[in-house]
Amino acid sequence: MDVRSPLAYASASRSRFLSELMDFVRFPTVSASPSRSDDLRRCAHWLASHLRGIGLERVAALETSGHPVVYGEWMRAPGRPTVLVYGHYDVQPADPVAAWHVPPFEPAVVGADLFGRGASDDKGQVFAHVKALEAYLGTLGRLPVNVKCLVEGEEEIGSPSLAGFLAGHERLLTADVLLASDTRFLARGRPAITYALRGSLSLELGVAGPGRDLHSGVYGGAVHNPLQALCEIVCGLHDAAGRIAVPGFYDAVRPVVPSERAYMTRVGPGDAQMLRDAMIRRGWGEAGYSLYERTTIRPSLTVTGLPGGYPGPGLKAVIPSVATAKIDVRLVPDQRPAEIERLMRRHVARVAPATVRTAIRTLSSSRPVTVDRRDPVLRSAAKAYRRGFGASPVLLRLGGSIPAVGLLQGRPGGSTVLMGFGLPDDGIHSHNEKFHLPNFYGGIATSIWFLSDVGRCHAPRGGASS
Amino acid sequence: MDVRSPLAYASASRSRFLSELMDFVRFPTVSASPSRSDDLRRCAHWLASHLRGIGLERVAALETSGHPVVYGEWMRAPGRPTVLVYGHYDVQPADPVAAWHVPPFEPAVVGADLFGRGASDDKGQVFAHVKALEAYLGTLGRLPVNVKCLVEGEEEIGSPSLAGFLAGHERLLTADVLLASDTRFLARGRPAITYALRGSLSLELGVAGPGRDLHSGVYGGAVHNPLQALCEIVCGLHDAAGRIAVPGFYDAVRPVVPSERAYMTRVGPGDAQMLRDAMIRRGWGEAGYSLYERTTIRPSLTVTGLPGGYPGPGLKAVIPSVATAKIDVRLVPDQRPAEIERLMRRHVARVAPATVRTAIRTLSSSRPVTVDRRDPVLRSAAKAYRRGFGASPVLLRLGGSIPAVGLLQGRPGGSTVLMGFGLPDDGIHSHNEKFHLPNFYGGIATSIWFLSDVGRCHAPRGGASS
Repeated sequence: MDVRSPLAYASASRSRFLSELMDFVRFPTVSASPSRSDDLRRCAHWLASHLRGIGLERVAALETSGHPVVYGEWMRAPGRPTVLVYGHYDVQPADPVAAWHVPPFEPAVVGADLFGRGASDDKGQVFAHVKALEAYLGTLGRLPVNVKCLVEGEEEIGSPSLAGFLAGHERLLTADVLLASDTRFLARGRPAITYALRGSLSLELGVAGPGRDLHSGVYGGAVHNPLQALCEIVCGLHDAAGRIAVPGFYDAVRPVVPSERAYMTRVGPGDAQMLRDAMIRRGWGEAGYSLYERTTIRPSLTVTGLPGGYPGPGLKAVIPSVATAKIDVRLVPDQRPAEIERLMRRHVARVAPATVRTAIRTLSSSRPVTVDRRDPVLRSAAKAYRRGFGASPVLLRLGGSIPAVGLLQGRPGGSTVLMGFGLPDDGIHSHNEKFHLPNFYGGIATSIWFLSDVGRCHAPRGGASS
Repeated sequence: MDVRSPLAYASASRSRFLSELMDFVRFPTVSASPSRSDDLRRCAHWLASHLRGIGLERVAALETSGHPVVYGEWMRAPGRPTVLVYGHYDVQPADPVAAWHVPPFEPAVVGADLFGRGASDDKGQVFAHVKALEAYLGTLGRLPVNVKCLVEGEEEIGSPSLAGFLAGHERLLTADVLLASDTRFLARGRPAITYALRGSLSLELGVAGPGRDLHSGVYGGAVHNPLQALCEIVCGLHDAAGRIAVPGFYDAVRPVVPSERAYMTRVGPGDAQMLRDAMIRRGWGEAGYSLYERTTIRPSLTVTGLPGGYPGPGLKAVIPSVATAKIDVRLVPDQRPAEIERLMRRHVARVAPATVRTAIRTLSSSRPVTVDRRDPVLRSAAKAYRRGFGASPVLLRLGGSIPAVGLLQGRPGGSTVLMGFGLPDDGIHSHNEKFHLPNFYGGIATSIWFLSDVGRCHAPRGGASS
């Protein structure tokens, strides 16, 4: 299909596209906050109405056991493959809000960047595909492939409702190619296709001590402070060399072959770049692996919050009755979340002091994902990047997780393309998140090229045209 | 002076006194919260107006570098001693607010208890003395002693402005007897005079890592998580036996003589009562000392909060750029706050890993307080308790700190009476704080008897009638 008019349309529509993206970012769709449920619902309906407006069909904000899934499709390309575009409209909490230069849900363009929570992760990225579809439908009236869009509202909390939702909509979501843009470039101007994601296991480790909060003057010295007991347990989760000290934790880790490690060293970020991106002077972690390897082919365990006691300004003289560690474990093949959860529970039960009670709650989990690097659909993606950004993408592993990819890519023969448009310095999950606008516009062009190439070069596989 | 009419007045005025105390508790005077400054100011003016209303003179809400000090006096008893009544109108934060059965600043009577933040600590206790003064002035038109009242608004944050304030008002505050009620009974129906308080040192230990928050999936395993580094430092503050592991920490601790330890064992709370009061099954801490001793004649170190990362519901996949430990150290004679601060700073500088930066900020400090147990004024206090509550008080050490007492008791020859009306289960610094109303009314009577006895039995000492 001739891409000239869609590209011209996209190019001429940039300021409207940006203004619409800002409307999208304005919804405070923090999926972790129960108080934001209505905002997520309003955003889902806004997005559904938007997809309907550009010409998608069977559009709906479908109910799940949590936040709605927005669905839309265009299935009028018989004999062509079906591309399932995945993204998410929910965002990370904006905390610490005071650290933002702009209010997180009042998006603002500064230079070539759009600042706002979710601008890069993932509203801007999924919206690039939406605008590519609009560019086709608004000029040629059709798409070069069949397309299904699935935009969920729970990615940032580990997609807890998605497996149940998919079980009820299996036929709706069959496709030949899963296209997800929730990843990133190697660096500015250097695109990347992600071929591996770590799995995840999110736990809350609770420690309970006295039956009520106590005055830390009156009782300090006679009561095991749950916050301190929690610190002791947390300390014991790593050894002095930065390895995870939970017995059996590494048993299922599959070694990566030397040829792939050599490739990673050649094309991936070096330690210096990793440190620069992280804005830190020294690395940390397991000996024998580069920083890039530590974050991708090795598992990790991060305490992401320690609520308990008094977090406010000044001081409160208190021994809190309970304290909680939020723990984010990242997994690599062939670690299974359920097995790691079992090992964690056994370890904590064994090391917890008798002076407190402990409990572990699992919030979410997902399996590691790998994509066959030789899949020809990746060549179409690489070609599209060269057209959209003037540069060949590298193949990267990424330390993050996208539970939906593991759930959606299960079918044999299906392709997965993790086509990132973010930059390492986008500040996703941090304050001052931004999306680099040249990546938004380049992403739209790349998506236009990619859909065209998939339509021309790839045949549908089994079950695609349901 | 005949106490019959003041006692009858107090007895007949109970329901009005309670209603006024509820008005006092209704002010959300959380001194730790900068956003509550206006509430503290409004409360200070309400209290000043109240003191003026009962007949005190030279009443004012005096400015300090922080929250106002409320002052009032009645100095028309020449030849009689001067009693300085100390209390505080500020309160602890009400967190966690959701745990309260009643809203913390909407005081409510349930059975014989008044629930509300500050009901026991310290509004109800200081108000008992105010009502005793009213009972005298409203019936006899005079007091049996000269009285100065000093009610401050920063006790719960360590009285940071008080030393500066006192330096500017030295003559105003000279007195023969310092009377402070911010302590507690041994148990219900068993009054206590506190004869020792621990000192305090409040620190914030900050750990800084990456220059911005990082995605814990993308960077987990390659960056030393400041929250984890903080846990490691916190763990190293105690040894496995529950002793504080900061080198030199115990060097200045003065051993308590065996006769006093025997007295403490005889009259003080046993381990079983301490555990019951704390609502916990097992004790913890330094071997060789009872729980009561661990909280009074031994120092302690409590982490009272670990802000950093994401404390909210659900999860946020983040490596926070900074994390902070709020640390409450309690000191015993002859530990000096400045020396302990120096030891803490040296220790943290030595153990902190090179992957993070640390900083220590001192929020407040106070020296330990001891009162001569043979001071004859304590006998007047004991006699007053017997009249007010029908029971003899024991002499107790308390693990808490009242910085003002250390600052005010400095004069040679002056007496200090720590006359507590609280109960161990009042839940001070916890949710559901309450004040036992029989202790409020008994406290008023005890104060009436005490002032009368001091006026009759004790002569003024130097500088009292300024």
